[in-house]
Amino acid sequence: MSAQLADSKNGEALNLVVLIKHAEVRVAKNGKKFISLSFQDQSDTISGMFWDAQDADIQQFTTGKIVHLSGQRETYNGQAQVKISGLKLADPSEGLQVSQFVKQAPLTAEQMATIINQEVFNIDNAKWNRIVRFLLQKHQATFYQHPAAKSNHHDFTGGLAFHTLSMMRLAKAISQQYQQVNYALLLSGVLLHDLGKTIELSGPVGTEYTLAGNLIGHIVLIDEEIVEACQSLGIDPADEDVMLLRHMILAHHGLLEYGSPERPKLLEAEILHHIDELDASINMITKALQKTAPGDFSEKIFGLDNRCFYQPNRTEK
Amino acid sequence: MSAQLADSKNGEALNLVVLIKHAEVRVAKNGKKFISLSFQDQSDTISGMFWDAQDADIQQFTTGKIVHLSGQRETYNGQAQVKISGLKLADPSEGLQVSQFVKQAPLTAEQMATIINQEVFNIDNAKWNRIVRFLLQKHQATFYQHPAAKSNHHDFTGGLAFHTLSMMRLAKAISQQYQQVNYALLLSGVLLHDLGKTIELSGPVGTEYTLAGNLIGHIVLIDEEIVEACQSLGIDPADEDVMLLRHMILAHHGLLEYGSPERPKLLEAEILHHIDELDASINMITKALQKTAPGDFSEKIFGLDNRCFYQPNRTEK
Amino acid sequence: MSAQLADSKNGEALNLVVLIKHAEVRVAKNGKKFISLSFQDQSDTISGMFWDAQDADIQQFTTGKIVHLSGQRETYNGQAQVKISGLKLADPSEGLQVSQFVKQAPLTAEQMATIINQEVFNIDNAKWNRIVRFLLQKHQATFYQHPAAKSNHHDFTGGLAFHTLSMMRLAKAISQQYQQVNYALLLSGVLLHDLGKTIELSGPVGTEYTLAGNLIGHIVLIDEEIVEACQSLGIDPADEDVMLLRHMILAHHGLLEYGSPERPKLLEAEILHHIDELDASINMITKALQKTAPGDFSEKIFGLDNRCFYQPNRTEK
Amino acid sequence: MSAQLADSKNGEALNLVVLIKHAEVRVAKNGKKFISLSFQDQSDTISGMFWDAQDADIQQFTTGKIVHLSGQRETYNGQAQVKISGLKLADPSEGLQVSQFVKQAPLTAEQMATIINQEVFNIDNAKWNRIVRFLLQKHQATFYQHPAAKSNHHDFTGGLAFHTLSMMRLAKAISQQYQQVNYALLLSGVLLHDLGKTIELSGPVGTEYTLAGNLIGHIVLIDEEIVEACQSLGIDPADEDVMLLRHMILAHHGLLEYGSPERPKLLEAEILHHIDELDASINMITKALQKTAPGDFSEKIFGLDNRCFYQPNRTEK
Amino acid sequence: MSAQLADSKNGEALNLVVLIKHAEVRVAKNGKKFISLSFQDQSDTISGMFWDAQDADIQQFTTGKIVHLSGQRETYNGQAQVKISGLKLADPSEGLQVSQFVKQAPLTAEQMATIINQEVFNIDNAKWNRIVRFLLQKHQATFYQHPAAKSNHHDFTGGLAFHTLSMMRLAKAISQQYQQVNYALLLSGVLLHDLGKTIELSGPVGTEYTLAGNLIGHIVLIDEEIVEACQSLGIDPADEDVMLLRHMILAHHGLLEYGSPERPKLLEAEILHHIDELDASINMITKALQKTAPGDFSEKIFGLDNRCFYQPNRTEK
Amino acid sequence: MSAQLADSKNGEALNLVVLIKHAEVRVAKNGKKFISLSFQDQSDTISGMFWDAQDADIQQFTTGKIVHLSGQRETYNGQAQVKISGLKLADPSEGLQVSQFVKQAPLTAEQMATIINQEVFNIDNAKWNRIVRFLLQKHQATFYQHPAAKSNHHDFTGGLAFHTLSMMRLAKAISQQYQQVNYALLLSGVLLHDLGKTIELSGPVGTEYTLAGNLIGHIVLIDEEIVEACQSLGIDPADEDVMLLRHMILAHHGLLEYGSPERPKLLEAEILHHIDELDASINMITKALQKTAPGDFSEKIFGLDNRCFYQPNRTEK
Repeated sequence: MSAQLADSKNGEALNLVVLIKHAEVRVAKNGKKFISLSFQDQSDTISGMFWDAQDADIQQFTTGKIVHLSGQRETYNGQAQVKISGLKLADPSEGLQVSQFVKQAPLTAEQMATIINQEVFNIDNAKWNRIVRFLLQKHQATFYQHPAAKSNHHDFTGGLAFHTLSMMRLAKAISQQYQQVNYALLLSGVLLHDLGKTIELSGPVGTEYTLAGNLIGHIVLIDEEIVEACQSLGIDPADEDVMLLRHMILAHHGLLEYGSPERPKLLEAEILHHIDELDASINMITKALQKTAPGDFSEKIFGLDNRCFYQPNRTEK
Repeated sequence: MSAQLADSKNGEALNLVVLIKHAEVRVAKNGKKFISLSFQDQSDTISGMFWDAQDADIQQFTTGKIVHLSGQRETYNGQAQVKISGLKLADPSEGLQVSQFVKQAPLTAEQMATIINQEVFNIDNAKWNRIVRFLLQKHQATFYQHPAAKSNHHDFTGGLAFHTLSMMRLAKAISQQYQQVNYALLLSGVLLHDLGKTIELSGPVGTEYTLAGNLIGHIVLIDEEIVEACQSLGIDPADEDVMLLRHMILAHHGLLEYGSPERPKLLEAEILHHIDELDASINMITKALQKTAPGDFSEKIFGLDNRCFYQPNRTEK
Repeated sequence: MSAQLADSKNGEALNLVVLIKHAEVRVAKNGKKFISLSFQDQSDTISGMFWDAQDADIQQFTTGKIVHLSGQRETYNGQAQVKISGLKLADPSEGLQVSQFVKQAPLTAEQMATIINQEVFNIDNAKWNRIVRFLLQKHQATFYQHPAAKSNHHDFTGGLAFHTLSMMRLAKAISQQYQQVNYALLLSGVLLHDLGKTIELSGPVGTEYTLAGNLIGHIVLIDEEIVEACQSLGIDPADEDVMLLRHMILAHHGLLEYGSPERPKLLEAEILHHIDELDASINMITKALQKTAPGDFSEKIFGLDNRCFYQPNRTEK
Repeated sequence: MSAQLADSKNGEALNLVVLIKHAEVRVAKNGKKFISLSFQDQSDTISGMFWDAQDADIQQFTTGKIVHLSGQRETYNGQAQVKISGLKLADPSEGLQVSQFVKQAPLTAEQMATIINQEVFNIDNAKWNRIVRFLLQKHQATFYQHPAAKSNHHDFTGGLAFHTLSMMRLAKAISQQYQQVNYALLLSGVLLHDLGKTIELSGPVGTEYTLAGNLIGHIVLIDEEIVEACQSLGIDPADEDVMLLRHMILAHHGLLEYGSPERPKLLEAEILHHIDELDASINMITKALQKTAPGDFSEKIFGLDNRCFYQPNRTEK
Repeated sequence: MSAQLADSKNGEALNLVVLIKHAEVRVAKNGKKFISLSFQDQSDTISGMFWDAQDADIQQFTTGKIVHLSGQRETYNGQAQVKISGLKLADPSEGLQVSQFVKQAPLTAEQMATIINQEVFNIDNAKWNRIVRFLLQKHQATFYQHPAAKSNHHDFTGGLAFHTLSMMRLAKAISQQYQQVNYALLLSGVLLHDLGKTIELSGPVGTEYTLAGNLIGHIVLIDEEIVEACQSLGIDPADEDVMLLRHMILAHHGLLEYGSPERPKLLEAEILHHIDELDASINMITKALQKTAPGDFSEKIFGLDNRCFYQPNRTEK
Repeated sequence: MSAQLADSKNGEALNLVVLIKHAEVRVAKNGKKFISLSFQDQSDTISGMFWDAQDADIQQFTTGKIVHLSGQRETYNGQAQVKISGLKLADPSEGLQVSQFVKQAPLTAEQMATIINQEVFNIDNAKWNRIVRFLLQKHQATFYQHPAAKSNHHDFTGGLAFHTLSMMRLAKAISQQYQQVNYALLLSGVLLHDLGKTIELSGPVGTEYTLAGNLIGHIVLIDEEIVEACQSLGIDPADEDVMLLRHMILAHHGLLEYGSPERPKLLEAEILHHIDELDASINMITKALQKTAPGDFSEKIFGLDNRCFYQPNRTEK
């Protein structure tokens, strides 16, 4: 069944297999319960109300379930909604996987791993090279699956690795232009800077902060991983090269008020901060503009101080 | 005469032709006047005191004069100083030019003009292309000579054009990586974003703010130039394409508190702001680290919130 | 038909001709659509729900339409609402104009123009005088109709000119008290400071920001107008007098974070900023207190950091 | 002896009676003591060094002494200095008063008192009228002598009353323009708003903060005076009219971070804050521009965020 | 009738006497009015809707009324709600008091008064001792009943005195540890610091700000009380000891932006600020964690920048 | 030799053994070099100039050297200075130790260790107990010697341990007053919170930041130590109890802008932050007031936003 949400049209019937992205029970003015639902597949997201919900409904239609959804697509105030006429859990025998309904990075995990592993050869400092390889290896199962954030930027399966990959390309272009940059250090910083998010966030579906994410945070979590890696690899964590690498990660948010315990004090740390912001900004603006018609302003972008961005009309060539 | 300040050694005699970068008359505790001087050539800067200054001395040894300087190089508290034994104005017949004593961009004006003019062909929007070419042509005499700032970053002859050129390279790399970027718009914004500094700043020697720079500022000054260019070229300034270009320049400082009357509302305007900050930061840090020994921290960098940057010891390969 | 919203009483029937200020379609819990409406005339504003809206209703009852409204006035939680019993579009043959239903400045456009044009004679500097007259002439059709803001202060037909007129009176009183003030400069600044809003805002009804307003902003828009006026009048825009005038406008928001690209650097520019804030504050507070009973605090005033103002009980004389 | 500092010319001999504004003993590089002095009369201020100071010199030439000064006026780096050749204490028999050497308000204490007392009749609320008259009477000895600030604005004898008088005129003009303003309340607020400075500051010569000024501050000090006045006059301090008046004073700094314990919540309190800022700004800028040549920028004004203001060249009429 | 809200269980019938904490009339989508109610007793709070409300219902079921409530307890989205089946005003003959249904401090007014009055003996400075006793005596009726805040911390009957008592204990421990602390001054400051809240807030039920609270604020209100106390007791308010005490109260919010007209300038004033913040923070966090299950994060705490606090799982011993 | 700096009197001869706290070579107006020196012993600090310094002088009189100083004590502008008549390096045979000239904590290292080790028994959670003991043991050599800061608070030998000890006492008093506090967790947090300063700072004499201090910072440095301790002790670092402890340390600066990568999210973490600030504030104010006469204000305290604190006159009892 290949039809997708993005293919459905306003006012027409809809009959699809989708994932329940979020389910919340509420009580209507008439005193009866209903379930406020949002559904997703890889193409889009849509919301709908399940009225007069019985206890059995409430128990089965929960976040993360795959369902057969039928109804009619309508639009109120510019937002798509489905008037639900049928809702049924998918049967395990159908062999459907949650991952089939979640947005994916433009590249597969394997493609990204190949590109990144190839580039690691360019880290021509033995300590950084060994630490980076050790940690990418240790977290490979999650690094290529996690999103880069809960909702701001690169919030899709593989988003963390894809964000890292984009920054890697920026880092390479910058290092080629400015000869004074230590590319090995910058690249090592890029590859590890957000790796702590594999511990901070629960995963690509129904992404939540873990307790470690809440109490320690991804910046310190990856710092600890570097220290542990040094011990496993027999590298002195007090070695200057190791301190440089740790500083790269600790300072990458740029400002104390953004959660970095130190501000950048290395040329490469300053650059790392800039390309992190640049790639995240481009991703957030692009995501918002994809949903914006030419001549309109986008919705407010939370991660960019609630600014709205303009989608220009086609310019003359 | 090829010897330069950077070649002189501590404790040795020094006999050079230099430019008086700054001269200020003060009175000593003994009631006699002296001139506090700083000298420069293309390689370095040094300060010195001219004791017991007579009125004739005060009148001839002023900022911007080229002089024959002899004396002994000494160091107090880590700062080079010259104990002046002789000081004499260079004779016009020697044919010396102030520009011979001022730091230059790594590329000549001609080299930069060639590269930039070639790239302008890639602005595949007729209005932007014509406006950019019109303004580069109009300001070519100063654009390739002015510094990019009074003292923060790219504060040397040709610094404005060199900063623009560096950003152009960053813009190209980014546009190749992110297909959604309108390179013609980004490139146009890069080329014009600081062009108003040709009006805001007095020039490459003894750089000061002009009255227009103080009262109007380079951001609005170039905006006005675009409007005038449109009139000369018969382009409607209220055309959407022109407004997009003007917004690029108006928003390039990113934040209102940095002097932009609007925050970026275009993807390309957000990128322009980021690469402007990135190139300026790299320039400031590099300039500070060039004077910093391995294992030391640099002086405070004013333009980067007075942070000191670390010059790492040579890392093992 | 002379009855107005402000004359209707709580609990009584209401039968009026009003303007639909805002219409928005929503869906009720029972799945049926309704229109959330607000109505206005020159005296007041009231909201009401149009239940069980059919497609025909939705198409005709939109923002900006003049309608015959009948129903009952009620109050819930202190806010007036009309329980709609009848709603019908006014017939073109009735000859009703939208402007009849929109709040007006206390003076007519003609009255304000007469006062302002008379005062312009006091600009005893030929350049400023010619520029001001040129621009007032050019924008006269909109200057006396536009509001001064979308919703904060002077948000009514003619509000822009009335705000300017009030500031003109303040400027005159201040100049008479402080002899050091250049009244010609201050007056010129007052008259032009918000003229760019004729381009920034769409007009007095359903006021929205234009694209130029969003991307350029009224401060830079009027700066550009001054430059163009200089060209039309054969005045050098780089003349000091012109720069002083432009600085007045550019700096009138006082702080960079309020959108001025320069902070005031002229005595008159500092004063212009103060009287702009003073008149706007008085207008906002007065508007809020008009709806506040003695002994109560007003609603929160958005433009004044959400402060509530107190309406004192009649004080003893 | 009518000659004054402002009459002396650079390079000429100078022979005047002046007041020692500030005296500070230092030690020269040769180990001998000298006195760093500044002198003032009503026209100007000048500094000078008294070399090789003996103990007797140090004991007699102290802050606040009137002296016969002879020497030569010189200028170093744009600042006037006197090369002292003779310094002698004035004899008591000469009958000189410190007040003869201190800058005075443009009006005498008597003139200001007459104008203010006349205006008090316009406070047509009996409670406010009685409180204001009671407190002006109580503090009349100091109110007409104190400066309005230690160094920022109106820092001269009678400055406090003159600042109050200027604001009174602004308040009257504003109340005439905006009928909704309660002039009696605004005027009462103006007259009392800074009266606490008679307790906060030590006086017009060598102005310092008192302990009460440091620990309580002038805003709360005058609030307490109002409460005491109510008790003396048999007025209930909890009466609404009294609370309105107290709020005027408490809120007049406008923002909590400027030391007001409450932000303005009355129309008249908001206006009081604005005209206080306006008159202080005009005074500070005027003082700075009086020392600035046409075409130059003034020194930095501390009380206005260190902005420099421009003194325009004479504009064409 | 001893059953309480906290004893009722989800899904079971409920039959209790409670206080209407808040009542608000709204209109349902079907056009009928209903009352949105919240009920409280000393143990807990619960909300419920009274559908199809008639005018008689609306008039009798208002904030502050004691009612017999019957219905069924339910939970939607984690929040307890009662489905109302019966609601009836309590009869005056039942002799019920509002105070029986309001949360109380852990100690009775008498217990707190005994402890505090005993400690006052330790104020070994006659002036402070007399002022403190005078004011505690004057406000004793309200001091032991008022809450410490409208909703943030210690928002219960007797909360003001209990907060004061807790701070008194902290002050004692700190004074014993740091010998340089003047305990008499610190204790006097603690006892008076929030006493102005007896004037600022209306009382323990339906707590609102009074006009004096809004226009003057509790910090200045208690300052005025001290001044009046001095007059009654024949103590000079300008005495240094009195100024020290007044400074303690004026500065106890620590920062100007928190409403203190002066920042702490006494060791004891700095300590007073710290223990005020400490006790308030502990109270707010404890209140939030009492409603939080182990392993969960609490709701956002408004008074602590909306932070959520973690309730740890039982730790191993 | 028991005489100390604090015993010397103004105007009298002085003949002491002291430590050179700081030495800096400068050049006088006459072109000769001199050494600007400051001397210290355990009682006080004094400055002095060594005129006409020869190269041999410059080489031997450097920071950290113990010298025999003779001269005359003088006071200029309220600051003590010594007019040096003799200066001679102490001979190694005299057996003098730098530590004899550095200010010491009020308790010896042994006394503090005894008290702290005794209290550790009250950590009734095995994991925290073992981690705390492990780390105190590991860093015992430096923990009882280091200052708590370079110059702000507790800047003396043993200052770090003494600050920790004071906070331990506060933590105990608070835990006894508030039963809901987990004392074991709070105590563990207190003992470890600044232990990273043993790595961040170079030591008690001539205290500087280490490279690790500059690039990593003491907050993350001790976090890493906890992780390593867990590995040595066989405790899982991802255990909730360990995360709670790590959060205590990471959040103890309270605000992100103060360098904590997380804000407090545990009741005990909030308390730890408060008592850290409280003890540091008391120490800084006490240090400043010790040098302040009754009736005067102290010097500005850098660590407390440059506030000056008042030293009250002896209050009447």
